[in-house]
Amino acid sequence: MNSQISPFISRLDATAKDTEDLLDRLLSATPVDGELSRPARLVKAMRYSSLGGGKRFRPFLVVECAALFEVPRQHALMAGAALECVHCYSLVHDDLPAMDNDDLRRGQPTAHRAFGEATAILAGDGLLTFAFDILSRLQTHPDPAVRIELVSALARASGLGGMVGGQMLDLAAEGRFDGNAPQRLGENEVRTLQAMKTGALLRFACEAGGMLGSATPLQRKALERYGSAVGQAFQIADDLLDLEGDPTLVGKSTGKDAVAGKATMVDVLGAAGAKARLKELVAEAEHALTPFGRGAAILIEGAKFVADRHA
Amino acid sequence: MNSQISPFISRLDATAKDTEDLLDRLLSATPVDGELSRPARLVKAMRYSSLGGGKRFRPFLVVECAALFEVPRQHALMAGAALECVHCYSLVHDDLPAMDNDDLRRGQPTAHRAFGEATAILAGDGLLTFAFDILSRLQTHPDPAVRIELVSALARASGLGGMVGGQMLDLAAEGRFDGNAPQRLGENEVRTLQAMKTGALLRFACEAGGMLGSATPLQRKALERYGSAVGQAFQIADDLLDLEGDPTLVGKSTGKDAVAGKATMVDVLGAAGAKARLKELVAEAEHALTPFGRGAAILIEGAKFVADRHA
Repeated sequence: MNSQISPFISRLDATAKDTEDLLDRLLSATPVDGELSRPARLVKAMRYSSLGGGKRFRPFLVVECAALFEVPRQHALMAGAALECVHCYSLVHDDLPAMDNDDLRRGQPTAHRAFGEATAILAGDGLLTFAFDILSRLQTHPDPAVRIELVSALARASGLGGMVGGQMLDLAAEGRFDGNAPQRLGENEVRTLQAMKTGALLRFACEAGGMLGSATPLQRKALERYGSAVGQAFQIADDLLDLEGDPTLVGKSTGKDAVAGKATMVDVLGAAGAKARLKELVAEAEHALTPFGRGAAILIEGAKFVADRHA
Repeated sequence: MNSQISPFISRLDATAKDTEDLLDRLLSATPVDGELSRPARLVKAMRYSSLGGGKRFRPFLVVECAALFEVPRQHALMAGAALECVHCYSLVHDDLPAMDNDDLRRGQPTAHRAFGEATAILAGDGLLTFAFDILSRLQTHPDPAVRIELVSALARASGLGGMVGGQMLDLAAEGRFDGNAPQRLGENEVRTLQAMKTGALLRFACEAGGMLGSATPLQRKALERYGSAVGQAFQIADDLLDLEGDPTLVGKSTGKDAVAGKATMVDVLGAAGAKARLKELVAEAEHALTPFGRGAAILIEGAKFVADRHA
């Protein structure tokens, strides 16, 4: 068996390709019903910010969690594409000069470096809005009750009590307001911050699979626990990459967290402690999937992939 | 009869007050199901950007169009509050230094002057996201099919083919990109730009009333035509205020359009021509409402109010 192209990687890549193709079609130059025109510069900036990159790990989670319930793949891909729009908008806005002031993203100039700040702000706004457009479409699910549940859950995961709130806590922890020095956060505070900033979208990805598949309450709970463990593992791996990663592999500047005084689990637990915690989280993720038996093998591999990634 | 407090103004004020109270409750410090916490600074900035000001004309349109179909007022107020969140987020982002760089809004410091750019960007993102949270709630309408239709229509009205797209066209017309001089747009181009930038949300307000009220296709068409005329009138009145208005009444800097080279109907038609067009639009709005008979009197007054406003 060729370990270079594992079944896991080929499924991850297949979902990445399908997500890319779907976003490419959805973000065409042609207006849809209810739109007057799609300005070329805005479409270009939105496409620049959402196409041609990324592992599409969030769509992968949606697709594979939905597959547990035999949800048609095209429905899960729509929900995954919507989620990816939210993820990509958040990167565009986080990279802005007034936020993290980053020049590189996935090895390319950030949106505001490529298009200017005004266009980057609008491209981010457009992608966030487009996520809800996608979720509202019949192609996402035939039942409007399922679609509106997805809208509600994505809004909560990405809004003031989720991702946007987490970003605000992160900037506050850096000491960005009222001339404060960086705050030294405790483990629980860092955990809450990260559960909001990155965890909420990853948890939504898993929960969305259950919503699309009309999962039972017990199955939903299992997906929620899995998503929560994967979300924590993802952020710790990210923080370790910032500390130890190779910028040419990571595709963005590294070593910035320590300089900015970012609150991370690596900061709280040390690098060795963070690596131990990563192992625990992978075990938690695996355990959460017990109710699904062997059908969840790919999701267990997904958790391991998150913990071991080098980019 | 006391012309100072007309029945129209008292109904406009009543909806403004109810909208204010509702947003005040919705934007409380207490997280709801699916949220981990609501960071105090973010809640403060979102409240600053959405409470305590404005005529709430968009919610008024939702409420009064919904009232044509005897929709319970609390449903229409929820949809109006969601729409107001989108409107307020757009003001916060449009005021940013990289966009219109405004210091004053409704006579108060703009969000980024009060809280800094990073917080203003996040507050805008939070308000946009919150709009879809509100629409997804049972309190907006008991039928999920109606709620998802509202989500779809609001996303289209405010996204790349609506408001955000219009803002992009507006910046392009100012000559903000590629070192161009301001473009001299023709009447049709200005009309498309404004139909997207401000018209789309006002039209949505009217259409939302019909969606909430399960209007017939003919009734929907009437509301769409009314909303379109009111949207155009609103923007022309706004541009006339920028040209001729008193900044102490308007609550923001005036005379900026000419300096920025903004594309407006005043620019295309001249002030006298724009005023004549305003009159025509009010007549169009009135004519569109014919199918609703005397029940639509308040909406006719609304169109006149938009055309005659001084602030």
